[in-house]
Order: sequence, then structure tokens, then C-alpha cells
Amino acid sequence: MRQNPATPTADLSDRPAGRRSGYPVAPLFLQRWSPRSFEPAAMPRRELLTILEAARWAPSAYNLQPWRFIYALRDDPHWQRFVDLLDAFNAAWARDASALVILVSERHLAGRDGAEPKPSRTHSFDAGAAWAQLALQATLLGYQAHAMAGIHFDAVRRQLGIPDAFQVEIAIAIGRRADAARLPPQLQAREIPSTRRPLDAVAFSGRYGAPGPAGAGAGA
Amino acid sequence: MRQNPATPTADLSDRPAGRRSGYPVAPLFLQRWSPRSFEPAAMPRRELLTILEAARWAPSAYNLQPWRFIYALRDDPHWQRFVDLLDAFNAAWARDASALVILVSERHLAGRDGAEPKPSRTHSFDAGAAWAQLALQATLLGYQAHAMAGIHFDAVRRQLGIPDAFQVEIAIAIGRRADAARLPPQLQAREIPSTRRPLDAVAFSGRYGAPGPAGAGAGA
Repeated sequence: MRQNPATPTADLSDRPAGRRSGYPVAPLFLQRWSPRSFEPAAMPRRELLTILEAARWAPSAYNLQPWRFIYALRDDPHWQRFVDLLDAFNAAWARDASALVILVSERHLAGRDGAEPKPSRTHSFDAGAAWAQLALQATLLGYQAHAMAGIHFDAVRRQLGIPDAFQVEIAIAIGRRADAARLPPQLQAREIPSTRRPLDAVAFSGRYGAPGPAGAGAGA
Repeated sequence: MRQNPATPTADLSDRPAGRRSGYPVAPLFLQRWSPRSFEPAAMPRRELLTILEAARWAPSAYNLQPWRFIYALRDDPHWQRFVDLLDAFNAAWARDASALVILVSERHLAGRDGAEPKPSRTHSFDAGAAWAQLALQATLLGYQAHAMAGIHFDAVRRQLGIPDAFQVEIAIAIGRRADAARLPPQLQAREIPSTRRPLDAVAFSGRYGAPGPAGAGAGA
């Protein structure tokens, strides 16, 4: 499937603690990751709302802001109902998070001046931008956010009253990182920040697959 | 189409220079916006690659990193070819940017261990997360990034050699902001940071449409 084989770079390390970038990005982007071991502690509503506020300022096509967030804090009466919307694998660790958020996006562009609504090309894309801002603001507040595609989509729609006009995108667990030892053994080994493909495997100059970064790539 | 009417909040201002958040988000999220007036100046390749590097560290489902970036710098020989991929409205202002990037995403999950590839639910969503990180890193370097959905999609695929396995998402103009006076009169009035729906119109506690932020919403 890979048209452009990855070229190892000196700056990208596979070491668990060794997320290093080849170019000087803000440390925030390397500090954000998706752990599964969380402290099962309450989080102030104000902090969750600050995290959602950052998401709200994401860019979107025509500034349509197709995202909506439905959330539960772990001391809310509806917390367990949110945990039960996750598949068994995710529920087993995400139940220890401090907040769970369901992110949905509006599928259509509202018709202007009474015109028929038409399908949006970018509602999921725009919702993804909001998710990234959410995750980064969480990191800035000392939390981590972990998105989950393994959720009971029909149950989410039904139980949370999501209108048909919206697509259910993902669930997000937010909490403060705990020691990996809290996890079952098979997850402990995976509790490390993930690495990435080298930049020259994803960034191309002028044409798909063409060598990018300083001609360092072995592009097709 | 709006199930939950926006409630005006004291903290959100419509004033052009008055982007203010109701909760204390990092200033970066308010500083990032999508201008159209750019200084027609070259940008160092290293800075563009730093911006793409931030995108590369975005989260994605199963860490599949479905994003690919095809770019032109304004002093590249293929610059004009990239400008011509934009629709006339966007080309008129984006031709002054310092870099143009086409963002595409892989539609399928590669089959593991020889299994058939299957459609990805999240490739556009994940690409949107990468776009947000790109835009934020651009802002951190003193640039702004402006995404465009108005592009010649078929020409993009054909001219840049995008494989069928990838969906063309958006184009992105990156540059240093210039005075609005550089723009045609009808665009000058729009050269202001956009506002957002109030948080209580997009964030709901426990159920879609339920009042969220401190019960301040007039939720359905």
C-alpha cells in the first residue's frame, strides 16, 4: 500500500520516551499522546469547558462549526451511561477517565436564504480539527485526551438523542495520566507514546510521492 | 436547522479585534485565524517543513496517519501549477501566499496480515486533526494558514498524481499576513477574525441539546 517507503531519519526515534521531531515544532505536539491509564479522579467542570472552548475555536469550512460535544464528568449521574456507550475494550480503561465526550458533526450545509440544505464535504474533517484543538488544550492543562472509534454508534445516537442531521464521529476520554501499572498486563506494554512515519513518507514536493524534505526522501 | 438557539454571552464579542473566549484557553487558539491578505514573499523550506512536522504528530485512529501533504513554495517551479488548482475566487488571493499545500487522506485501512483493505470511518476526521496542528504551528511561527474547499478536485488528482486510494480533502494557503488594503474592496470588509457560536450552543451535558456550561444555556 505504501507508494513511498519510509526512510529512517536520525531524528526520529522508536524509543518509548524518545518522541523527537526532525524539525523544531512546539513541544506541545510531542507532549500530547493517547494514554489509557488514568487517575480515577473528578475534574472541575470549568476545566472540561476550557478544553471544549479550545475546540470551539477550530477552523471550519465557511465557519460552519459543524461540531457538537455531549459530555459526562465522572461525578455526573449520567457517567455510567456514557461508559456503557464504549465497546468493552475501551470501557475497561476509559471508565477511569475524568470526562467522556461524544463528538458529532452536522452532515449538511444549511441552505442560505431558504435554499435546500446540501451535503457537506467537510463536516468530519472540520470535526477532526476541533478534536485536535481539544486534545492540545487538554495537554496544556495537564490532562491527556484519547479518542476512541470503538463505540456503540447506534446506542450513542439513541441514548444521547443525536438528531439524524448529525454523524457520530468518536468518543474521547480525558483524564490525568496514571502509572501504567494500573492497566491489565497486555495493555501495559502498549502504554507508550506512539511514533510516526518519517516526514518524507507523508510530505511531497510538487507531486504525490515526490521526494520532499530537502530531497532526503527515497520517493517513487 | 439549529436545535439549540445561540445564547449571547458577555465574553464573546463580535468586534473584529475582539475574539475573546469564555474560558481561559491558550491564546494560540484565538490568534490562529484565516486571513486572505498575505505578503507575497518566499518562505524558507525549513519553516514549511516544521509546519508539516507538527501536522505529522496529530493523533489518528490506530495511529494510521492517513494524511499526505503535497506542497509548493512560491519560488518552486511548480508554484503556478498549484495556484491554478484553486478556483478563481481563491486563486485571486492565495496566489500571494508563501506556500500552498494539498491535503489528501487514505480512504482504507490496510488489511493486517494480508487481509483485504476495508473502508476507514475516520480518514477525513484524522486529516482534519492534522490540519489543525498544521495551522497552529504556522501561527506559532508567525504565519497564518487558510484552508480552501474551493479547488478543482479532478485537476488536483490528475496533475499531482494522487492515487485513487486517497481522497482530496482541502488546499491550504500559508503566508505572513499583510494589510487588508492589498485585497479587492469586497474582501477587505471580510478580513477580520471570525467569531464562533457560544459554547452552550455546541456543548451539552448528558444529552444532545441539554444545557451545558454552568446551566447557562437555553437548551432545548
